Amino acid sequence: MSFQGKKSIPRITSDRLLIRGGRIVNDDQSFYADVHVEDGLIKQIGENLIVPGGIKTIDAHGLMVLPGGVDVHTRLQMPVLGMTPADDFCQGTKAALAGGTTMILDHVFPDTGVSLLAAYEQWRERADSAACCDYSLHVDITRWHESIKEELEALVKEKGVNSFLVFMAYKDRCQCSDSQEQKRLLELGITGPEGHVLSHPEEVEAEAVYRAVTIAKQANCPLYVTKVMSKGAADAIAQAKRRGVVVFGEPITASLGTDGSHYWSKNWAKAAAFVTSPPVNPDPTTADHLTCLLSSGDLQVTGSAHCTFTTAQKAVGKDNFALIPEGTNGIEERMSMVWEKCVASGKMDENEFVAVTSTNAAKIFNFYPRKGRVAVGSDADLVIWNPKATKIISAKTHNLLAEIHGVPRGLYDGPVHEVMVPAKPGSGAPARASCPGKISVPPVRNLHQSGFSLSGSQADDHIARRTAQKIMAPPGGRSNITSLS
Amino acid sequence: MSFQGKKSIPRITSDRLLIRGGRIVNDDQSFYADVHVEDGLIKQIGENLIVPGGIKTIDAHGLMVLPGGVDVHTRLQMPVLGMTPADDFCQGTKAALAGGTTMILDHVFPDTGVSLLAAYEQWRERADSAACCDYSLHVDITRWHESIKEELEALVKEKGVNSFLVFMAYKDRCQCSDSQEQKRLLELGITGPEGHVLSHPEEVEAEAVYRAVTIAKQANCPLYVTKVMSKGAADAIAQAKRRGVVVFGEPITASLGTDGSHYWSKNWAKAAAFVTSPPVNPDPTTADHLTCLLSSGDLQVTGSAHCTFTTAQKAVGKDNFALIPEGTNGIEERMSMVWEKCVASGKMDENEFVAVTSTNAAKIFNFYPRKGRVAVGSDADLVIWNPKATKIISAKTHNLLAEIHGVPRGLYDGPVHEVMVPAKPGSGAPARASCPGKISVPPVRNLHQSGFSLSGSQADDHIARRTAQKIMAPPGGRSNITSLS
Amino acid sequence: MSFQGKKSIPRITSDRLLIRGGRIVNDDQSFYADVHVEDGLIKQIGENLIVPGGIKTIDAHGLMVLPGGVDVHTRLQMPVLGMTPADDFCQGTKAALAGGTTMILDHVFPDTGVSLLAAYEQWRERADSAACCDYSLHVDITRWHESIKEELEALVKEKGVNSFLVFMAYKDRCQCSDSQEQKRLLELGITGPEGHVLSHPEEVEAEAVYRAVTIAKQANCPLYVTKVMSKGAADAIAQAKRRGVVVFGEPITASLGTDGSHYWSKNWAKAAAFVTSPPVNPDPTTADHLTCLLSSGDLQVTGSAHCTFTTAQKAVGKDNFALIPEGTNGIEERMSMVWEKCVASGKMDENEFVAVTSTNAAKIFNFYPRKGRVAVGSDADLVIWNPKATKIISAKTHNLLAEIHGVPRGLYDGPVHEVMVPAKPGSGAPARASCPGKISVPPVRNLHQSGFSLSGSQADDHIARRTAQKIMAPPGGRSNITSLS
Amino acid sequence: MSFQGKKSIPRITSDRLLIRGGRIVNDDQSFYADVHVEDGLIKQIGENLIVPGGIKTIDAHGLMVLPGGVDVHTRLQMPVLGMTPADDFCQGTKAALAGGTTMILDHVFPDTGVSLLAAYEQWRERADSAACCDYSLHVDITRWHESIKEELEALVKEKGVNSFLVFMAYKDRCQCSDSQEQKRLLELGITGPEGHVLSHPEEVEAEAVYRAVTIAKQANCPLYVTKVMSKGAADAIAQAKRRGVVVFGEPITASLGTDGSHYWSKNWAKAAAFVTSPPVNPDPTTADHLTCLLSSGDLQVTGSAHCTFTTAQKAVGKDNFALIPEGTNGIEERMSMVWEKCVASGKMDENEFVAVTSTNAAKIFNFYPRKGRVAVGSDADLVIWNPKATKIISAKTHNLLAEIHGVPRGLYDGPVHEVMVPAKPGSGAPARASCPGKISVPPVRNLHQSGFSLSGSQADDHIARRTAQKIMAPPGGRSNITSLS
Repeated sequence: MSFQGKKSIPRITSDRLLIRGGRIVNDDQSFYADVHVEDGLIKQIGENLIVPGGIKTIDAHGLMVLPGGVDVHTRLQMPVLGMTPADDFCQGTKAALAGGTTMILDHVFPDTGVSLLAAYEQWRERADSAACCDYSLHVDITRWHESIKEELEALVKEKGVNSFLVFMAYKDRCQCSDSQEQKRLLELGITGPEGHVLSHPEEVEAEAVYRAVTIAKQANCPLYVTKVMSKGAADAIAQAKRRGVVVFGEPITASLGTDGSHYWSKNWAKAAAFVTSPPVNPDPTTADHLTCLLSSGDLQVTGSAHCTFTTAQKAVGKDNFALIPEGTNGIEERMSMVWEKCVASGKMDENEFVAVTSTNAAKIFNFYPRKGRVAVGSDADLVIWNPKATKIISAKTHNLLAEIHGVPRGLYDGPVHEVMVPAKPGSGAPARASCPGKISVPPVRNLHQSGFSLSGSQADDHIARRTAQKIMAPPGGRSNITSLS
Repeated sequence: MSFQGKKSIPRITSDRLLIRGGRIVNDDQSFYADVHVEDGLIKQIGENLIVPGGIKTIDAHGLMVLPGGVDVHTRLQMPVLGMTPADDFCQGTKAALAGGTTMILDHVFPDTGVSLLAAYEQWRERADSAACCDYSLHVDITRWHESIKEELEALVKEKGVNSFLVFMAYKDRCQCSDSQEQKRLLELGITGPEGHVLSHPEEVEAEAVYRAVTIAKQANCPLYVTKVMSKGAADAIAQAKRRGVVVFGEPITASLGTDGSHYWSKNWAKAAAFVTSPPVNPDPTTADHLTCLLSSGDLQVTGSAHCTFTTAQKAVGKDNFALIPEGTNGIEERMSMVWEKCVASGKMDENEFVAVTSTNAAKIFNFYPRKGRVAVGSDADLVIWNPKATKIISAKTHNLLAEIHGVPRGLYDGPVHEVMVPAKPGSGAPARASCPGKISVPPVRNLHQSGFSLSGSQADDHIARRTAQKIMAPPGGRSNITSLS
Repeated sequence: MSFQGKKSIPRITSDRLLIRGGRIVNDDQSFYADVHVEDGLIKQIGENLIVPGGIKTIDAHGLMVLPGGVDVHTRLQMPVLGMTPADDFCQGTKAALAGGTTMILDHVFPDTGVSLLAAYEQWRERADSAACCDYSLHVDITRWHESIKEELEALVKEKGVNSFLVFMAYKDRCQCSDSQEQKRLLELGITGPEGHVLSHPEEVEAEAVYRAVTIAKQANCPLYVTKVMSKGAADAIAQAKRRGVVVFGEPITASLGTDGSHYWSKNWAKAAAFVTSPPVNPDPTTADHLTCLLSSGDLQVTGSAHCTFTTAQKAVGKDNFALIPEGTNGIEERMSMVWEKCVASGKMDENEFVAVTSTNAAKIFNFYPRKGRVAVGSDADLVIWNPKATKIISAKTHNLLAEIHGVPRGLYDGPVHEVMVPAKPGSGAPARASCPGKISVPPVRNLHQSGFSLSGSQADDHIARRTAQKIMAPPGGRSNITSLS
Repeated sequence: MSFQGKKSIPRITSDRLLIRGGRIVNDDQSFYADVHVEDGLIKQIGENLIVPGGIKTIDAHGLMVLPGGVDVHTRLQMPVLGMTPADDFCQGTKAALAGGTTMILDHVFPDTGVSLLAAYEQWRERADSAACCDYSLHVDITRWHESIKEELEALVKEKGVNSFLVFMAYKDRCQCSDSQEQKRLLELGITGPEGHVLSHPEEVEAEAVYRAVTIAKQANCPLYVTKVMSKGAADAIAQAKRRGVVVFGEPITASLGTDGSHYWSKNWAKAAAFVTSPPVNPDPTTADHLTCLLSSGDLQVTGSAHCTFTTAQKAVGKDNFALIPEGTNGIEERMSMVWEKCVASGKMDENEFVAVTSTNAAKIFNFYPRKGRVAVGSDADLVIWNPKATKIISAKTHNLLAEIHGVPRGLYDGPVHEVMVPAKPGSGAPARASCPGKISVPPVRNLHQSGFSLSGSQADDHIARRTAQKIMAPPGGRSNITSLS
């Protein structure tokens, strides 16, 4: 359910780099070796490598060298109710890199009246001009008509797309549609974010997974379930695997790291930051269960489903939870979250960590071993990992990024975004500076306004965080899975 | 999901009966006592009852006295592909009585263009004029439009219907519809009954149950699952109960007593006799699993889904399994099957046997303790049970019926029924003699031609079986749950 | 696994009572009727009963009349570390009655060197002289030698004992024994009640149940699991039932009504009040799961495992959790807890409530329908139930008892009980007034000192609670399951 | 739970080999490349490799090149009731090679009175002098006393043993011991092999696994379960993984490829061939379930538990199933069985096949990537795989072995082996020619006499099968995991 662009732009960079003395951690084993990088590729791996003079050297003694993380689910440009997410391809991929992720798989979400192919091209364009790390695209099928079949065929054969998303929500003649339930809650006076989770019960999520699994089995097609948010959904996947179904599951940063009790937060902005579908589950034992399944191999990969809106944007639904634009953050926090919840807790070793944050995704979506492995010939997407202070090398940048730290946040009493639905074509262009080129004043995400905190503390923090970043924008055309810099 | 007719016809019969010395077996306890029956009701229960002289007396020493069986699922008049089932209300209810069942719940299945209410009245008319035991009706909802809501309301409020059946098969844009799968198999040259089971995989049945459970939970409505045929479906029910869903499950004679390996029988007629949906499951451990769940209380009631067609009728599909009229027998075999599989095997005691063959159904469909219990004031629907030679007392008949024995069967080389689709209204009236009135030559079911055998042997047996029956037809009007005789 | 004394003392009482206009609630149905009680038995049930003049009448219009509750697990006299529980047979059974329970099943726990038979007689003596409600006895087998077999046979044949308890904890050569784990925790400086739960993990409890189930299956013996405290243990039972094992499970007031987070309470006395084995589970979703299984029939009965110690007694282990005498309260709270968690929440109807609080126990332990059913001929153990203000009629008392309310509690800074191990025979006799006879100043349990609160609040409450009780002590000898008054 | 000998014998062989044009299949990916082998190691992998002239070349176009199989469980020398298995290290390892297995993990089983260390040395000696492929050793702990601890420490520290087996059968005071059950069956006149399976029910196997899992969790020690024979045992492992336990499971050739219905075979010899503990499960859906779990990753490795006895030896128990020496074959059939059941059936791809037959074992027992991977620097243990005609390259032999075919077998009416217990030391030496040295007339296993057939047909076949084998015996000393040739 993904694709890899095949745009054959030659790698121009001749940057050479030697990472010395680190512990190479792949999904199958760890060992001590130097890594010699050249032209965006790993050229040599070995002890005491002999390299040309004058090569830039990083000392990795005492540190781990991992294949760069792959975030299997982002929605960096998906318009919701006419609003554009706060983190676009530029901002979002910078955050990804800051968290150890060197490749993302974003979802193409066609607007009404736009063909899949046209939407795909839109997304390519946006991403090529702005993304700071490699990317690939899933394509969402938002409606069905006969000609879609031809579009799918073209996307597969001509564009190499290999994953398509189908939504499982449906309006059956018998089933209470979501909107009915939402209406009922609003009539009861439940207008806050808790209404969102109350109108999206766990059993409906689990049923959708069960149905998807059955259809996949019948169609003899591998299934990939995005956004595994509940124990019910995860168990449906685990049980299906045991019956021989080829199915993969993607928990996300939010479902692995927090729980839905926050929907009842007295801080509206905090509660609203968690609004996404399926919702973050209120059962406090959910995260523990999902990390167990991720460790046991019943779930295989991790995404962020990163799609953030400022609190002002969220506040469009301040009187009606059904109008809150959906989406949570997590692109930057994903890897450290998995480390903390799975490795630090003793559920996983470092090799399994690499599997679920990088290698498995590369295998499932068919870009292994180019990504997902520290091996000669693979892309030089490397993370120098230190749970406390992580540095990332990406094939695109060969630069060091800053440490990860928490996301402090305060009470909301700010402005409310004005919605214009439908967004006028053309006027939807984001006002913010585009990403490429030398960035003197990078438009840092205001984390005060959007996203959830994975730490407990909620305090103001207006200080821009990644000022030390020196993202070198690629000078020419770019494509996914092609590092230029 | 059923109804009870409230037609207040006075019980005219003043038959008096004393059953002496038996072991009364209810769902909660057993004890030795005499039972005094009068006017179709149980008048007294006690040791050494003093009764009026000249009363007819049955000696039940060494035997069990059970509440009459309730078959929760029959389809005695359901037309399939324009054909009428071999056992109509008259024949079917005689077979029921022969097997220890004194009440059936038949399904109203509205023809195209017939309203639910009209169909209900049709069924009432047919049943009232022909049924030899008490009955009640479920109503199947075969299509949906807005005015159905009003019909449902009328059926509930005016007719007392309390159970409606909704079919879970659906033609989703993504799911291979049954017909597609059938077409594929036919193209592969699979035209025999094995094609039926191959085109109805277990996981689809389980998925339908899972979906139904989810919808019921959302709608906050108790769910009753008919025809539990597979481990997957049964487990979906058991797991849902554990999550707090109010759900009941009905395995049938066929799923409890046999398995789907017969679809591959070289005897076409035998294989075709098993064609029903969902199919009898080929996994040979299915029956054991279902009887375990019936014993543990995860499944609660038993039906027969009796809907038989002669081999000549089944042979309409001799070159195309999709044209075989669906349905199996089991109305007569149900109770002895449950006894053999559950009690004789040590999984149940006699009280649990009464629960799953009678009492639970009466409770679920709201005619307890009038049915389902041997108690003062209850209807005199009694079975004098002897696993080897069972006698039945029904409130309608007060007569003894013959022993149960196996259903031998031979190879099929006989005639093929001619189908007329659509059946012309009026011409569809069965030629056979109607049931009520003194029956000089009872039109006994030709068991050679339809139904499956639960024994292994397959031999011809043209001897009519229930010639000793003296079913006394009720002289006047009759209704369900009202015994007159 | 219980017994019923057969002491044939004639019921002397000729108290007559009419309960008028109530809703009779049995496990299988509810209906409106009057109940006429005489000589401790139910004499008539019917509408507008005609009874002798001058009969005492209770108006039960708008109320429910239930069979008296059966608490399947109490330990009212079990010495722990030489200490006697705070609630003995007198106090404990009064509390039982106050909560709607009219019969208890207490556990005989033989002291070292005392034979099962002698212990049984001890228990009978204590209970006969003090119990205010009917009782029956389980016998615990605390060690094994060949002659035990003969004792068991005598208990079964001569005393009618039908349930024996075997402890599943064992010291395998491989398994960390509890004491090792406790030692380790103490060495780590964990001396408080949280050490108790940390040294008794859920998986060990679940494993014991799994092992017991397997042994029972092999021995072809019904199994009854006391004190189901965790999801793991409950699931092991549910799964075994599905495999055909005859197994029953007993959750208790504490596992249904609270969770083990309290072990980490900063209030030591509160935390210590929860110390019991297996411990109350810290997973906050446990109670919800257990009530689901109780509602679905996977668990069948409810007990209290009532065995309380004053905070002074608990404080023997103030520096070492392993020395805290184990036991929680719940004999009085059991029925209202089940009502609140299961009926008020919509998981059960009133009939299922009667099943799990009374009828199922009577069936399993073989005193149905004498207990567990409102029926003619049954013992007049009746509860007039109003969730807000419950009144209880017991066959022994025919008296009304007061309302149930919460158990407030404060911080512990009081005295510490001095332990004498072994307790000197004779000196162990409780100083408090014995129960029988007219009680002018009833020695009410000081609930401030023992037991856990099921409400959140923790405040002092020194006010005696059941001063309105007029327990009429039986004047002569008494036995279990025999009401005299 | 295994060990690797570290005997530093220099690799003398300078055999060079080029495998050209094959498809390299590792557990993570497949690709086309040549493989250049020298001195028992893989020297180069690449397209169109340039190698020294005169190198021996194998054309592998159209074939797969796999890492040699690892059989995680053999018992090639384990004496049972004083009898030596039919296949010793020499014969057994030849069969292993014939089936694609280049390394075995044999179990050291100390005789009564022999210390673990002494037994280990015995096994090393036997294996070093006879084994034709690499090996490693598990050590079975057959009894417990304090000094065992020191022996374990010595084995771990001095010998590198990393896996020890503990038997879970136990004689609890409550549980019917196996021998009691066997006695009961014999008294019932059940003396044939079906008595073996009747006295070893599935639930006891599952309980043992559950108990082991719990102990392992408590001890915080990884668990490896040998001989997973039933759905119950496999599910216990799968569920434990989901709760976070580090546990691995080993189904064997017999449990993956056949079922226990054969215990009821009218051919005694055939039935007896299946006698092993836990028994091959009679549930015919077992193999399908185990292969599903092996495919889903809940089970990870495959063994054979190869321990064969001739029919004459088995016949020691012809009148008493408890005397039949236990063990089945499977060392040669393992890989083709997994291929057929898992890959041919569509449950696995070729990479997963490599994982479960080789790579996972190497990782778990800590000799990855020396074994289990086709990579530069790894041992040259390679299988040229063609499902129809498989050729094997082992680091020890560099020779080609013959095709695999079925195991025909006839009725037993032959001689009965005479048992001498205890076997006299010295006399136990097998009469057959020892393995090393040039073998002119290889002593081929008489498969007519022992083992089960995985095909349906049972016919005589006296023709020696592996006459084409040219096993080159190593000229000097040898050790496990050290190829010399």
